[in-house]
Amino acid sequence: MKNLQIAVIGAADPSPEFESLATEVGRTIASRGAILICGGLAGIMEFAARGAKDKGGLTVGILPGYDRKTANPFIDVIVPSGLGHARNVLVAASGDLIIAFPGSHGTRSEISIALKLNKPVIGIKDWGAISGVRQVNSISELEKELVPIF
Amino acid sequence: MKNLQIAVIGAADPSPEFESLATEVGRTIASRGAILICGGLAGIMEFAARGAKDKGGLTVGILPGYDRKTANPFIDVIVPSGLGHARNVLVAASGDLIIAFPGSHGTRSEISIALKLNKPVIGIKDWGAISGVRQVNSISELEKELVPIF
Amino acid sequence: MKNLQIAVIGAADPSPEFESLATEVGRTIASRGAILICGGLAGIMEFAARGAKDKGGLTVGILPGYDRKTANPFIDVIVPSGLGHARNVLVAASGDLIIAFPGSHGTRSEISIALKLNKPVIGIKDWGAISGVRQVNSISELEKELVPIF
Amino acid sequence: MKNLQIAVIGAADPSPEFESLATEVGRTIASRGAILICGGLAGIMEFAARGAKDKGGLTVGILPGYDRKTANPFIDVIVPSGLGHARNVLVAASGDLIIAFPGSHGTRSEISIALKLNKPVIGIKDWGAISGVRQVNSISELEKELVPIF
Repeated sequence: MKNLQIAVIGAADPSPEFESLATEVGRTIASRGAILICGGLAGIMEFAARGAKDKGGLTVGILPGYDRKTANPFIDVIVPSGLGHARNVLVAASGDLIIAFPGSHGTRSEISIALKLNKPVIGIKDWGAISGVRQVNSISELEKELVPIF
Repeated sequence: MKNLQIAVIGAADPSPEFESLATEVGRTIASRGAILICGGLAGIMEFAARGAKDKGGLTVGILPGYDRKTANPFIDVIVPSGLGHARNVLVAASGDLIIAFPGSHGTRSEISIALKLNKPVIGIKDWGAISGVRQVNSISELEKELVPIF
Repeated sequence: MKNLQIAVIGAADPSPEFESLATEVGRTIASRGAILICGGLAGIMEFAARGAKDKGGLTVGILPGYDRKTANPFIDVIVPSGLGHARNVLVAASGDLIIAFPGSHGTRSEISIALKLNKPVIGIKDWGAISGVRQVNSISELEKELVPIF
Repeated sequence: MKNLQIAVIGAADPSPEFESLATEVGRTIASRGAILICGGLAGIMEFAARGAKDKGGLTVGILPGYDRKTANPFIDVIVPSGLGHARNVLVAASGDLIIAFPGSHGTRSEISIALKLNKPVIGIKDWGAISGVRQVNSISELEKELVPIF
């Protein structure tokens, strides 16, 4: 069986309260043996990747540009797509499950493509207004959602 | 000066009430000398393109696959992108203005990318809940929105 | 019947001898009622588009970036793809026929994708070494190749 | 320092003589601690990935479609891009070095994009006719090429 791939998405400049939460989500993903997929840049993407590396996990960053040096330091596999915003489609398509932190238009585009591809999307303290997203408000609620998946 | 390019997006299988409205929007676009951009397939895309051709306008369809025969019969320029859902990014990027009819996840992804690219987005009887979208509820309201643009 | 779409590809900084030839190819395309597809930038792309506009043709430029101002002045329909080098795939996919002037790696990538998609590729004074490309060495030879196509 | 990423490209249906050679190249890549990037499907992609897994390496497959089940069984990280032939650009862009086995138009498109991105490209018993490709004719010649890279 292939390893589960979980995409973590959200703002590149998130509200400070989400740093520890995103790091914890990254730890959870790695602890369960899943691969972390993200957009490879700063903010939520970096916090989650840092958390995954804390637990020895594997992290993948799909960048909008061609320069792999733009990846945050916690990314193992770098896909410098050069696709601009179309890289968002690849982040969504690469997750078997998507965990969405608060963000803006880019995050919403990733959620939309994930739902279009019939993937489960869990929103962290946000996104519950989009039909198809299951919003949770704590790590313990998230853990409960993950039980049937792992 | 280049011709204005206006992207019309929305469901491939819309509620019947939107057929005449989308056709009217296509006519309005062509009457003002703008180029109609769309995803090239059925539903809102086809109704708008048909309206544009009624008025002798120019229509562009950016398809998800490689087969140009999948374009609706009202498309003049066919871009068979082969990009799957990533073609949505191109539809959004090709419009100087986006007019969004009701739709589902694909339409929401296009609106999101358009807002990310700082383009004006007008929602037709929908999408007003997304920050940055200006919702209108009739053709006359739409016409008023278009005055400063043309 | 849809209008034929012909992609013209080649160097952004070609040898001067190709300016008049590329312009003539653009004129030929427009005179026959075909739509000119190109990468929208300078060099061969601009010369061919200028020729097509001389004859009142329709021109399409598929740009690598998001800024439509980077298109040359002879482009009617601008697709600012934002896809970087992946826009080459779209140029190749959008032509029913590809006419390739001398160029470098980008041009070779477009020829390769066009052949992969089973499209006819005509090389202008070059590219005959690639299996599947029909090389011609003058406009009159090119015209002869085009007879069965139009 | 990030792990080196090496892309191995070539035919999905190669001549039988290349099976052991591609597997050996995969082993070499993994033995040196580099990550193997490929298109994720059969033939050269699968042989190289199998070789890398023989040596406990990490393998990445960037698929043209959305279905991760189409990946060969030796792929660890799956990027189901849905981009069709544009996924070739991502394979090329993701390698710090490209090793190209004999192949056809798809392989040539990847070599071309890699050269456009100024990446070193080593051809295995082929591709030496493309300016910028360093052709080698044996594993020992390849090993010599790799010395300055690792």
